[in-house]
Amino acid sequence: MGKRKDPSKLRPLETFDSAEKKLKQIFIGLSDDIVDQKPPVMRIPVRTASNTVFDEKRNMLTLGGRMGERKFNEIGGVRPFMQTCLLARAIQEALKHNDHPTIRDLYYYTLHTIEGTEIETFNNQDESNTVFQDIEVMTGLLREQLGVVAESRGAMVGQVVLESKGNKIDCSKFGIGAFNIPSLCDQIPILDVDAEYVLVVEKDAIFQRLNDYEFWRRNKCLLITGKGQADRATRRMVRRLNEEWELPIYVLTDADPFGWYIYSTYKAGSISLSYESFRLACPEAKFLGMTMTDLEKYEIPKDHLIKANDIDIKRAKELLVSDEATGQPRYPWFHNSKRWRQEIKLFLNRRVKAEIESKSSKGFRFLSDVYLPEKITAKDWIE
Amino acid sequence: MGKRKDPSKLRPLETFDSAEKKLKQIFIGLSDDIVDQKPPVMRIPVRTASNTVFDEKRNMLTLGGRMGERKFNEIGGVRPFMQTCLLARAIQEALKHNDHPTIRDLYYYTLHTIEGTEIETFNNQDESNTVFQDIEVMTGLLREQLGVVAESRGAMVGQVVLESKGNKIDCSKFGIGAFNIPSLCDQIPILDVDAEYVLVVEKDAIFQRLNDYEFWRRNKCLLITGKGQADRATRRMVRRLNEEWELPIYVLTDADPFGWYIYSTYKAGSISLSYESFRLACPEAKFLGMTMTDLEKYEIPKDHLIKANDIDIKRAKELLVSDEATGQPRYPWFHNSKRWRQEIKLFLNRRVKAEIESKSSKGFRFLSDVYLPEKITAKDWIE
Repeated sequence: MGKRKDPSKLRPLETFDSAEKKLKQIFIGLSDDIVDQKPPVMRIPVRTASNTVFDEKRNMLTLGGRMGERKFNEIGGVRPFMQTCLLARAIQEALKHNDHPTIRDLYYYTLHTIEGTEIETFNNQDESNTVFQDIEVMTGLLREQLGVVAESRGAMVGQVVLESKGNKIDCSKFGIGAFNIPSLCDQIPILDVDAEYVLVVEKDAIFQRLNDYEFWRRNKCLLITGKGQADRATRRMVRRLNEEWELPIYVLTDADPFGWYIYSTYKAGSISLSYESFRLACPEAKFLGMTMTDLEKYEIPKDHLIKANDIDIKRAKELLVSDEATGQPRYPWFHNSKRWRQEIKLFLNRRVKAEIESKSSKGFRFLSDVYLPEKITAKDWIE
Repeated sequence: MGKRKDPSKLRPLETFDSAEKKLKQIFIGLSDDIVDQKPPVMRIPVRTASNTVFDEKRNMLTLGGRMGERKFNEIGGVRPFMQTCLLARAIQEALKHNDHPTIRDLYYYTLHTIEGTEIETFNNQDESNTVFQDIEVMTGLLREQLGVVAESRGAMVGQVVLESKGNKIDCSKFGIGAFNIPSLCDQIPILDVDAEYVLVVEKDAIFQRLNDYEFWRRNKCLLITGKGQADRATRRMVRRLNEEWELPIYVLTDADPFGWYIYSTYKAGSISLSYESFRLACPEAKFLGMTMTDLEKYEIPKDHLIKANDIDIKRAKELLVSDEATGQPRYPWFHNSKRWRQEIKLFLNRRVKAEIESKSSKGFRFLSDVYLPEKITAKDWIE
């Protein structure tokens, strides 16, 4: 039996019912304005890199305070105003009927030639995607809270019991298989956890190998993989395990800038989607490895290292860069950490990277039986 | 309770034990040659496009009869000969210890500088991957039969009961989640099936939506997705459901050449990996939709169609092309089918494609409640 955080101290999970009400309320406000003969104005937080700030208190990327206005009574505003109302109505209808469309479904559902004209409601999916994101930031409800399904990729195993549609799902009973984490994972309560930490694994094949050895049983942990750059549902599940069950989160990736970037997305969110961090980022996530220092410590043979290419070098430099306009570091959790600066500089000096699988030079079970337990026991991670 | 094919009529699933014995036997044959003072020779089927043939009896792509020889006593042969033995030994060791490495693990496990020289056993992973494939065709054992894990992506739901490591896994009890199909899925017996067909869905989000509606329960089917171009495990699971439980397989993709190519891989295998077809291809798979004819039949509005781009056109033409050298069609299952020729020509004439989600113009449940049941009842598929 795990230690569950007092649910009264957690922000309650949004229900589709309350999301529908909130959405309705905002748009009814606009029609009230019309009735009162006030020109209706939508106020929408600006989703640009320049309005993305690092929230030091919460330790994650979030949107800054800049707002844009979308006015029905202005020539440039009328089309996006119409599109926003159209899409919001479709979302509300779907919520009302317990339908969970994708944003593509919403696009096709709302796409048509406006009566008496030759004008299309949307010119393409990019246009409707942008309007959809506007609705997310305007209402403060992310797509999953609005019941809108996205592609998902992640998998999970270990002693955790979930519930969905009346079924109890025990993730320790899948043998070599795993639980496929769905997009709307907030609809799945976590009933019980018997684990001391969560190990997030970048690569699916490593996840499968650790599952095959029942690493999770022998080390009392949960295993999760996002199969590369994590999808939203995997990030959300990681965040919930940390928030609801106070489990430490350790991330295992290749020793290269791409791996560090994957870790960074789990931890602090991404610049282009910073408005999602409040639900998807997990600031307490720690980087377990592979670090550049590990390469020497664990004597990875020189011929097992891979020469870094130009993209790797560029990416590594970016992790330490400051924004030209603001002078602020772009990735403060790397830039402000002495240990990370050392790691990245070590990489830029040596210009080599290494894959997790290079551990197999010491035997197929070195990763599961030596490296991981040693690192975790020694608390040898980077915050 | 489903109708299971008499297991005595099925090729029994390879056990790791018998795979190890077979592997050992082949390589012991080589050392016997040395003892008998005969120069050892490996005979390896040639894995080139020119040695890929369409097996009309089995209705799939397979390797032709051309063999290459790898000789220890020839200057060009000695290095690959050494590499093949080295890798085969590592595979055999892993099998013996019940380890299931990836091909990357095998690469790092065998990579080293040859004693007394500055020569590396492998120059890079591409080199070891090629040798690994040689071992597969030489022994007739695919990587999963050799216990070597690959990345996996697929998910499955419906009334099917699996077994792994003593756990019974009921895929109708995942709620909005799903079973994540692992790479070594042949280690998972299918204990029971209560379904009339398998619906293979290209897109994960569509799979999730159909699962959310419990389409599988209402239509007595199993749902599987490979999340785009299918991984090996998903293809193998589809094949096994067809072979072991005699379930018809229907494939649902976007109406575009990429979707047709995905279907094609499920059905007949791929040219570059034709030696895998005998375990992974499912010649009985039928293409349910979306067809080009559907676009008119279901009155998809013109503004819901997407203009085909150059890559689409090129791909569509390739599906009907004949090989320059042999004069044989490259994709006989498209080329020799009147219905497919019509479909592809219709595409090339109209130069438009459509996404499955375009069905949502008629309502969010049109796909699940009208289109799919109608198509299946009317047997409106392409063989």
